[in-house]
Amino acid sequence: MWHIRGCRAIPGARMNDARPIGVFDSGVGGLTVVAAVRARLPSEALLYLGDTARVPYGTKSAEVVRRYAINCARFLVDQGAKLLVVACNTASAYAIDAVREAFDVPVVGVVEPGARMAAAATRRRKVGVIGTEGTIASHSYQRALARLAPDTIVFAVPCPLFVPLAEEGLAEHPATRMLAGEYLEPLLTEGIDTLVLGCTHYPLLRPLLQEVTGPEVRIIDSATAVARVVAETLEQHDLAAAERISGDRFFATDVSQRVLRVGRAFLGADLEDVALVDL
Amino acid sequence: MWHIRGCRAIPGARMNDARPIGVFDSGVGGLTVVAAVRARLPSEALLYLGDTARVPYGTKSAEVVRRYAINCARFLVDQGAKLLVVACNTASAYAIDAVREAFDVPVVGVVEPGARMAAAATRRRKVGVIGTEGTIASHSYQRALARLAPDTIVFAVPCPLFVPLAEEGLAEHPATRMLAGEYLEPLLTEGIDTLVLGCTHYPLLRPLLQEVTGPEVRIIDSATAVARVVAETLEQHDLAAAERISGDRFFATDVSQRVLRVGRAFLGADLEDVALVDL
Repeated sequence: MWHIRGCRAIPGARMNDARPIGVFDSGVGGLTVVAAVRARLPSEALLYLGDTARVPYGTKSAEVVRRYAINCARFLVDQGAKLLVVACNTASAYAIDAVREAFDVPVVGVVEPGARMAAAATRRRKVGVIGTEGTIASHSYQRALARLAPDTIVFAVPCPLFVPLAEEGLAEHPATRMLAGEYLEPLLTEGIDTLVLGCTHYPLLRPLLQEVTGPEVRIIDSATAVARVVAETLEQHDLAAAERISGDRFFATDVSQRVLRVGRAFLGADLEDVALVDL
Repeated sequence: MWHIRGCRAIPGARMNDARPIGVFDSGVGGLTVVAAVRARLPSEALLYLGDTARVPYGTKSAEVVRRYAINCARFLVDQGAKLLVVACNTASAYAIDAVREAFDVPVVGVVEPGARMAAAATRRRKVGVIGTEGTIASHSYQRALARLAPDTIVFAVPCPLFVPLAEEGLAEHPATRMLAGEYLEPLLTEGIDTLVLGCTHYPLLRPLLQEVTGPEVRIIDSATAVARVVAETLEQHDLAAAERISGDRFFATDVSQRVLRVGRAFLGADLEDVALVDL
């Protein structure tokens, strides 16, 4: 028996929603998430917005970060985004509930996926989390891990200089190594076996951080975890694209040679056209 | 013979203009200028605005910096400022003409006073200038020195990590010393005898920088130079206050524990009340 009433999803069949996925970040760090989503979901088109005129969020208050995050999300929804990725740990920590409340599309943050991956990875149940001052002060990783893995102890430290060091291309510099040694020392003393990179800038420092922690500490880069959750969320909401019909588009609230240069390092590819927007 | 027509300044007599001096900066670095103006002009009341929600300006484009500077200046003029100090090198470099054009009050920047002091100080006619990426790229110190002391060679390098290092309280840290050594090495090789601190954050690093340059290099902190030009400008425009009738007032576009903590280091005194403003 067949019921054909208008256009309806047929269980087992694949809808084709070619609208783009919207990703935003305080600056260019979220391009590490774009690279991970591109690699996992090649059929999906992406819109990226970097709030480069107001970067960084990590040192700002919860209220200001919420206001900025809502601005960014509204722009992407107005551009037709079918799903939003808050690719900034500080904005995920402070503003994800506000963004979910304000818009109808599914919203994926970076905290929950990273915390889930860490909960699955830790053997000794001792997890370290590093991030900006705002992310660490928000206790969002600590809360997510307490929920997902209540027997796990979380040691969290802010590493405020890692963002400027990564942006300046000093990911392998001896000064960075010295500061990394100081930031991580208390976590290593506590015997963590898993370290969450709670900031989208930190993947650039990963080789140096792995040297500092030694090979036995598992480093969790939440960009990969986010790409996985994006794929699951598209499936759940029947929003996946069957094939890509448009290229990715990049927007920023300030566009300079610096943004293009630093962005390239995070994306792992050239940033061709970046359109300037005023939020 | 006496001509008395309306209210007119009598040569030699002192007007008493008790309106405040308005000072703004991208963040808290401009508080070094407040400290210098306070020390030199104890009768003057000050209004300070730190654009802490949008800090830093030093990595942003000229257009964005101009927009933000006009916002800040308008706020201070609306609050009754009789004179404006653009206490941010990047904003002075990119936006001082725009601010002068937009408002009727006298406007003092930080570039010209620092350049003047350097021109007077250099013996070998070789001056080094350090600042943010924006300040150095604007060539504003280079242009000011070319005008004031055409026979002087200027060597300018951006030191983008000095702002975050100073804000993190690492002014004496070995990592800061290592980076300072690298940033200053080309200037010292060129044989500069004078070094302009072209950023209001850098006075905190002064002891370390003097160690790196050695005692024979004269370090110019523009805060002191700015205070002198403010005093002269008040005299010229007959705007000086005979006595202070109100306390200083502090405003910021984001207020956090961090702003208060870091601000205290720059002001050299407690920041009591900081009022939040939305520009």
